[in-house]
Amino acid sequence: MQYIAPLAKLIEHFRALPGIGNKTAVRLAYHVLDMDVEQAKALAGAIVEAKEKIGYCNTCFNLSDQNPCAICGSDQRDHSLICVVEQPQDVAAMERMRDFHGVYHVLHGALSPLEGVGPDQIRIKELLNRLADDTVKEVIMATNPNVEGEATAMYIAKLLKPMGVKVTRIAHGLPIGGDLEYADEVTLSKAMENRREI
Amino acid sequence: MQYIAPLAKLIEHFRALPGIGNKTAVRLAYHVLDMDVEQAKALAGAIVEAKEKIGYCNTCFNLSDQNPCAICGSDQRDHSLICVVEQPQDVAAMERMRDFHGVYHVLHGALSPLEGVGPDQIRIKELLNRLADDTVKEVIMATNPNVEGEATAMYIAKLLKPMGVKVTRIAHGLPIGGDLEYADEVTLSKAMENRREI
Repeated sequence: MQYIAPLAKLIEHFRALPGIGNKTAVRLAYHVLDMDVEQAKALAGAIVEAKEKIGYCNTCFNLSDQNPCAICGSDQRDHSLICVVEQPQDVAAMERMRDFHGVYHVLHGALSPLEGVGPDQIRIKELLNRLADDTVKEVIMATNPNVEGEATAMYIAKLLKPMGVKVTRIAHGLPIGGDLEYADEVTLSKAMENRREI
Repeated sequence: MQYIAPLAKLIEHFRALPGIGNKTAVRLAYHVLDMDVEQAKALAGAIVEAKEKIGYCNTCFNLSDQNPCAICGSDQRDHSLICVVEQPQDVAAMERMRDFHGVYHVLHGALSPLEGVGPDQIRIKELLNRLADDTVKEVIMATNPNVEGEATAMYIAKLLKPMGVKVTRIAHGLPIGGDLEYADEVTLSKAMENRREI
């Protein structure tokens, strides 16, 4: 009785989204009922369209609506430099920076034996294949600065070293705009370890 | 370049929803891309279905997928008792309480001269029509406890009194589980004013 069936169903769907609790789901559902029919259809259409049009680039495995993706297909990018990240979101973060001009490789995860993610579950083989023709000079490991990300970076580095390619790791240290007082011990220890002469 | 077109469009749509900021919109959009096609279509379908199936009850103007709505059409409810609320969400809140057995009337707003909402913009006329056949004995004004809600309650009470119907207002006071120390002055003053013998 509390919510009529189509409304209850919509609330359930919203609640299944990440970070959406019960109250937000209810507010969103009532908002949809307040929309014009056209607006609601446009929202529904955008969901289906994004899902149908977007797939993976066969080269870097980033999300893309073309194949190869705009980055892999561009002659403005340095194809001898590959930045390896865990997720498509990480590519977006790197692109926001606007000063990386190489290409990417999206692993779609990080090694995590506890969660059953081994080398075959993420796109490591595909990365090795990209190195076969010797155009790649450097691979930057930009996996997350946590246990899984570090392990993945180390594992891939060990595989790539014998192939004669330079493997680097993005720096760890204090975030810009951060406060030394509030930095955690591990970050601070890394920042000290990686100090450089000025 | 940062987001491909269908993804950017989906992010925009999510960002237009209430209480969804930039980061949440991005997270939701990536979540949709991670869904199965069927799940994404089910979400889109639920949005369109809710919008298409749900309209207003011609009696109480609550949201409903039938006409009259389940409450207005029920012979288990006391049709001589009307609870007047501002929004359909308020009916859901009242129904959660489970001990109101009358029927509702949804105004779809409150009087607010500053925002150009006068008596003709909310469903006051429709409420008066419901009183024409003398079955209604009491009208409970459950508009919100703020300036607009109070004004609306007073305005409607003045219209209904000459028709010989009892008009009541829901009580103001301290919320249960609340803390006297943190109650605002207006609530506390109302709670004192409405004190009763025990």
